[in-house]
Amino acid sequence: MRGVSLSRLGDLSEAELLALVLPRYAVTGSPELVVAPGDDAAVLAGLGADVVATTDTMVRGIDWRDDWSSGEQVGRKLVAQNLADIEAMGGRPVALLVALLADPQTEVAWVLDLADGIAAAALEARVVVAGGDLSSAPPGVVVVAVTALGTLDGRPPVLRSGARPGDVLAVRGSLGFSGAGLALLQAGEITGQATAAASLLAWHRAPRVEPGVGAGAAAAGASALIDISDGLVRDVGRIASASGVRIDLDGNALLEIVASTPLGVVLGEDEGLRQVLAGGEEHSLVGCFPGPLPPGWTSIGRVLDGTGVTLDGAPQPLAGWDHFAP
Amino acid sequence: MRGVSLSRLGDLSEAELLALVLPRYAVTGSPELVVAPGDDAAVLAGLGADVVATTDTMVRGIDWRDDWSSGEQVGRKLVAQNLADIEAMGGRPVALLVALLADPQTEVAWVLDLADGIAAAALEARVVVAGGDLSSAPPGVVVVAVTALGTLDGRPPVLRSGARPGDVLAVRGSLGFSGAGLALLQAGEITGQATAAASLLAWHRAPRVEPGVGAGAAAAGASALIDISDGLVRDVGRIASASGVRIDLDGNALLEIVASTPLGVVLGEDEGLRQVLAGGEEHSLVGCFPGPLPPGWTSIGRVLDGTGVTLDGAPQPLAGWDHFAP
Repeated sequence: MRGVSLSRLGDLSEAELLALVLPRYAVTGSPELVVAPGDDAAVLAGLGADVVATTDTMVRGIDWRDDWSSGEQVGRKLVAQNLADIEAMGGRPVALLVALLADPQTEVAWVLDLADGIAAAALEARVVVAGGDLSSAPPGVVVVAVTALGTLDGRPPVLRSGARPGDVLAVRGSLGFSGAGLALLQAGEITGQATAAASLLAWHRAPRVEPGVGAGAAAAGASALIDISDGLVRDVGRIASASGVRIDLDGNALLEIVASTPLGVVLGEDEGLRQVLAGGEEHSLVGCFPGPLPPGWTSIGRVLDGTGVTLDGAPQPLAGWDHFAP
Repeated sequence: MRGVSLSRLGDLSEAELLALVLPRYAVTGSPELVVAPGDDAAVLAGLGADVVATTDTMVRGIDWRDDWSSGEQVGRKLVAQNLADIEAMGGRPVALLVALLADPQTEVAWVLDLADGIAAAALEARVVVAGGDLSSAPPGVVVVAVTALGTLDGRPPVLRSGARPGDVLAVRGSLGFSGAGLALLQAGEITGQATAAASLLAWHRAPRVEPGVGAGAAAAGASALIDISDGLVRDVGRIASASGVRIDLDGNALLEIVASTPLGVVLGEDEGLRQVLAGGEEHSLVGCFPGPLPPGWTSIGRVLDGTGVTLDGAPQPLAGWDHFAP
């Protein structure tokens, strides 16, 4: 095998590339991976009666820029996106499938960096990389697709449709960090509050999902759950729509979030609040709770009769990210 | 919503596109889909103790050409590739996840044609489309990624590593049709035996996987199974390598396959045999059997002591498709 540091995918056969990638995913003693990568398909045990499944993808030039994010960060982010969807059903993630489609001119070192990021995020979440696919792509194209599988461990799923008037809307984790980090990168210069800005940039590049956050919310009686992928107003609007309720966001609570985090220092109150409301790719969980909030969750609104999303009673447009919007 | 026939993805919002696509996947009365597309993730019941999972992708310009294949054919082919991997474990496919990444200039009509092909292949295989992902992609780029999930229904998986000296190597279904169809398209003109050629072209564009073929082979005692995705010699070589055996192909049996199918009429004996040995994307199952062959399987070789793949005793290079080979 040739030296890796300077080589491109096109310098290697599939077998040579797999020999470099698969050891990075090796997990010993996983009882749930009956057949590991290398056969026609993976076989997983221990998923129980109900399997939770989701898939998410990232495309170079659309979902990341190589000058802003490393391969390792792309890998971590894509795993987080998928894990958040499993957690948002109240599930426990168990396994990942990873498909890479790449221009043969892609640097092998970047692909290994990507694999390291996927492996690190998988290890933190205690999930196994069970299989995947490798394909060549046209010049300049790099696409990574991840599928996550999980289990409900016998619990019912927590749907978007379960919110009821009287529930409290709460968040666990940050809001607006990823959107703020992206805005800083797009502005092209990070001046002033460098340390505070660093945490925003880091979250945009590689958000993390707390293992067990969804199952914990389910155990605490959450009536609805979603992760923030397209912006708070837009994603909470999905709960409102599926549940047939209105969700009223609490402006003071959201401003307190701005003030108590790097958002306030770096962006100020107005722009900070804008990112809290519309910033996507955060992957924190937002849920509705009929009873007392479990530890670590912060109230940010109420579920009411009606439709749509309001902020202190004022209707909010469903701003946020839409892949194909005109 | 605007007229579909002339519109591009960029003319629609995600919600509008999903409203067009999801009804095509609607399946009534599927006991295995507890939570259908529309929430954070799908929930599937009835997968049993062991879940089989695989993923495969297709890229426009690499895996298909729009002037050679319709969206419907691309959808059928990608589903077949994934189902074949589940069958080749002895599994029963249950569900698909479908991710589409596409240039916003992609015609909506093509995307709906793709969905129709996926839905038709899923219906034939009695699997549900459980979820997916939509993303925009750079100009010219269209990628489709499918993940298939299945169950072993309590049986052990049939691995590539189970072949033993004395087993008979057998195939169920065609060999070389897809490679021959591709060669005809690449040659640029289809003359003479148009009807015979049509079946080769059709198989290249949209191969099919017989539901239950893998489970049937498992029940008949298959010691190893694989589907032909990269060519007979290359894929059988994977069984030989994983099992630590030599597999000797029977030249007369393979020539009989050429003579008794459109391969002989359209390509002649030499080129027909070449496609049988090296043609990929066929997705027929090849297996090793220690006992009598089950109905519908044709003997094409023997498992012996040694290593590698031979044809009537002569070593064969592992020709076939390699995504990144120099």
